[in-house]
Amino acid sequence: MNIPKSDLPRVVIIGGGFAGITLTRKLLKEDFQTVLLDRNNFHTFQPLLYQVSTSGLEPDSIAYPLRKITRSSDRAFFRMAEVESIDPEKNTIYTNIGEMVYDYLVIATGSKTNFFGNKSIEEHGMWMKTVPQALNIRSLILENLEQAVITDDPVKRKALLTFILVGAGPTGVELSGAIAELKRNIVPQDYPDLNPDEMEIHLLEGLDRVLPPMSEEASAKAHKFLKELGVQVHLNTMVESYDGENVTTNTDRVFKSSTFIWSAGVTGAPVKGLNASALVEAANRYEVNVFNQVNGYENIFAIGDIAVMQNEEYPRGHPMVAQPAIQQGKHLAQNLKRLVKGEKLEPFHYKDKGTMATVGRNRAVVDLDKWKFGGFFAWFVWMFIHLWYLIGFRNRLVTFFNWVYNYINYDKAARLIIRPFKGAKEKMEDRRV
Amino acid sequence: MNIPKSDLPRVVIIGGGFAGITLTRKLLKEDFQTVLLDRNNFHTFQPLLYQVSTSGLEPDSIAYPLRKITRSSDRAFFRMAEVESIDPEKNTIYTNIGEMVYDYLVIATGSKTNFFGNKSIEEHGMWMKTVPQALNIRSLILENLEQAVITDDPVKRKALLTFILVGAGPTGVELSGAIAELKRNIVPQDYPDLNPDEMEIHLLEGLDRVLPPMSEEASAKAHKFLKELGVQVHLNTMVESYDGENVTTNTDRVFKSSTFIWSAGVTGAPVKGLNASALVEAANRYEVNVFNQVNGYENIFAIGDIAVMQNEEYPRGHPMVAQPAIQQGKHLAQNLKRLVKGEKLEPFHYKDKGTMATVGRNRAVVDLDKWKFGGFFAWFVWMFIHLWYLIGFRNRLVTFFNWVYNYINYDKAARLIIRPFKGAKEKMEDRRV
Repeated sequence: MNIPKSDLPRVVIIGGGFAGITLTRKLLKEDFQTVLLDRNNFHTFQPLLYQVSTSGLEPDSIAYPLRKITRSSDRAFFRMAEVESIDPEKNTIYTNIGEMVYDYLVIATGSKTNFFGNKSIEEHGMWMKTVPQALNIRSLILENLEQAVITDDPVKRKALLTFILVGAGPTGVELSGAIAELKRNIVPQDYPDLNPDEMEIHLLEGLDRVLPPMSEEASAKAHKFLKELGVQVHLNTMVESYDGENVTTNTDRVFKSSTFIWSAGVTGAPVKGLNASALVEAANRYEVNVFNQVNGYENIFAIGDIAVMQNEEYPRGHPMVAQPAIQQGKHLAQNLKRLVKGEKLEPFHYKDKGTMATVGRNRAVVDLDKWKFGGFFAWFVWMFIHLWYLIGFRNRLVTFFNWVYNYINYDKAARLIIRPFKGAKEKMEDRRV
Repeated sequence: MNIPKSDLPRVVIIGGGFAGITLTRKLLKEDFQTVLLDRNNFHTFQPLLYQVSTSGLEPDSIAYPLRKITRSSDRAFFRMAEVESIDPEKNTIYTNIGEMVYDYLVIATGSKTNFFGNKSIEEHGMWMKTVPQALNIRSLILENLEQAVITDDPVKRKALLTFILVGAGPTGVELSGAIAELKRNIVPQDYPDLNPDEMEIHLLEGLDRVLPPMSEEASAKAHKFLKELGVQVHLNTMVESYDGENVTTNTDRVFKSSTFIWSAGVTGAPVKGLNASALVEAANRYEVNVFNQVNGYENIFAIGDIAVMQNEEYPRGHPMVAQPAIQQGKHLAQNLKRLVKGEKLEPFHYKDKGTMATVGRNRAVVDLDKWKFGGFFAWFVWMFIHLWYLIGFRNRLVTFFNWVYNYINYDKAARLIIRPFKGAKEKMEDRRV
């Protein structure tokens, strides 16, 4: 892998998500040789992926070249690589571009979509964890609209104009809100030959409220906002199967739809090679102690979505969102410095900064520790926070510009079918990436 | 195809390039039912494609949704369709989404890459006529750099760092200039483990000067600029074959390269169904009279790259660039109005507004009728003209912003390998689109 030899202890970080890049940045000037690995050459700002899917933003606004992070230090290296396995006895990892010895290994591989074993959904549905997947969803939505225009068969047209979103977490809520905005502002203008009333957006949730991780106030407000936007919310509704056209559920309701987007669960994305006891099997995530050390190992750490740090407040580990990942990345940087100095490690404490979700234009819900609010001001806060956390000054500027432009013009500039999704069998691969 | 019936005469326009969208725009408010067809749902601003290839711009900056053009009129329609053939007897076209009768047919299908029958180039080379192809080139360049970093074999590394561009027309010159800028400004920072001197950019041209369609002054200046940037120009050099690694030429020189970009020729992209006499066989373009009527037909027109209007000044037709296409589109709109009113048609006269090409940062060459100049001012003019002709206010703003940002920061923001090109056999299809 051509990493130069060095007297400094080598930290290898697998994954350039929030956890991995925060840790990398904190180690740049420290006495470590830092090696960041990722299968992509960019970091993806996942909270805004849904805007890529719905033509609001282009990938370059939410992706950040990982080499721009490592290049500011001559002790830091990036390699585009897929890690295949770990040999903890030999302190070695094996990748598609060769093997590498580490002194400290940090697993920050995040999470992937969980289908709970449902093959029909995995085969026919769409999901959205990566930029190519988001672009596929964009192409599919636009292709379905194009096809609806030329279809005489009312049943087929109805299916092309019916959008099923499963799972009313932030992703499902934000995506359905954005598709509802397309229906309101883009479809009537761009597709004058379509009747926008024929377009239906259904959000299906197995639990009894939307945004289950948030407060009941937030759920109620988000539900109201979704209804106002024309999203049909179906609670206590579990999907049983999707064959590419028919959606069956645990209720009598059957939907016919050409667009089925699954955002009803995630599971860890661990790497092969560690002892079985390192993994919390149900979650597919590594069990870590308060120092983020993986159970059974001293020099292997896990941070972010892939780590489960159980305590009284979080019996199943921290929520799989950006904040714990960022905070653990920061904290681990300090602990690694302590470790090489022979100092005592400090336990990690999660500071919950609150959660939020946006519902279309002008509306969002925000849960802070002592203050829960929704509506226009919340939407403003949502935008500000997302711009703030977006990586890179340029990305903030471009995203801000696009938001202002789209807002003023009720427009979505990126409604481009760059690579058609449908009928392209080979593209199926991309959904599985 | 679900186009409503109308008493207005129907103009069907095949192709949303410069010619097609100019004509469509001019007909929006006129007494025609206008139907614009394209295989993509967007117009591509081809003169800036090379910046998409070299990470300077994202597709949304140079692509424009075609429905944004037709939506401002209730007499204009867009359909995403691939035209398969024409039946001039029945005034009917056949497409992948059905058939349609026309009163007037306008063929504006443009041109495609010409390999002059060389299968090895078609099989192993890259070219750049569409956005997906440009994105493939971007991915390939970045993937080669990533691979060069991890390669111990000096011969293999050399091939990964050798970029062969064939054809020193504007595309070849602009692309090689942009790759040279990558070598200067991005590679040393992003790839500190690579020796930038190992990176070589070779521009091969069969004729005895670069930019053969431009003046000798422009050629000489551009050649000088390319040399200053470190591009190695090889004149009187014709490529014989490329097997994915070795480039053989008519000279003794053999190159080893993983990146071979072919921009040495275009040929027309006609549609099946018209009489053989309609086509100028050598060029694969339709022969048209001074009214852009295709030879042998009264209600079938061809405009832009696909049309050859021969006269004394242009014995082989107008140059296959944007200006003749735009001017013919405008002119044909007027003639169609005359035609339905029973008035006499007016002959087309091409007004040569000049040609230009840019060579990296700060340098360009411009040929106007009476004034030929090069350097910084020419580069400024080049930028201004390209912004001016770019379709859509937003695209101008975004492109301008990106140029300013990239210029100040010596940066290219979009160096993202969104969809890897290499090893993905299925992606090969995209190169042929």
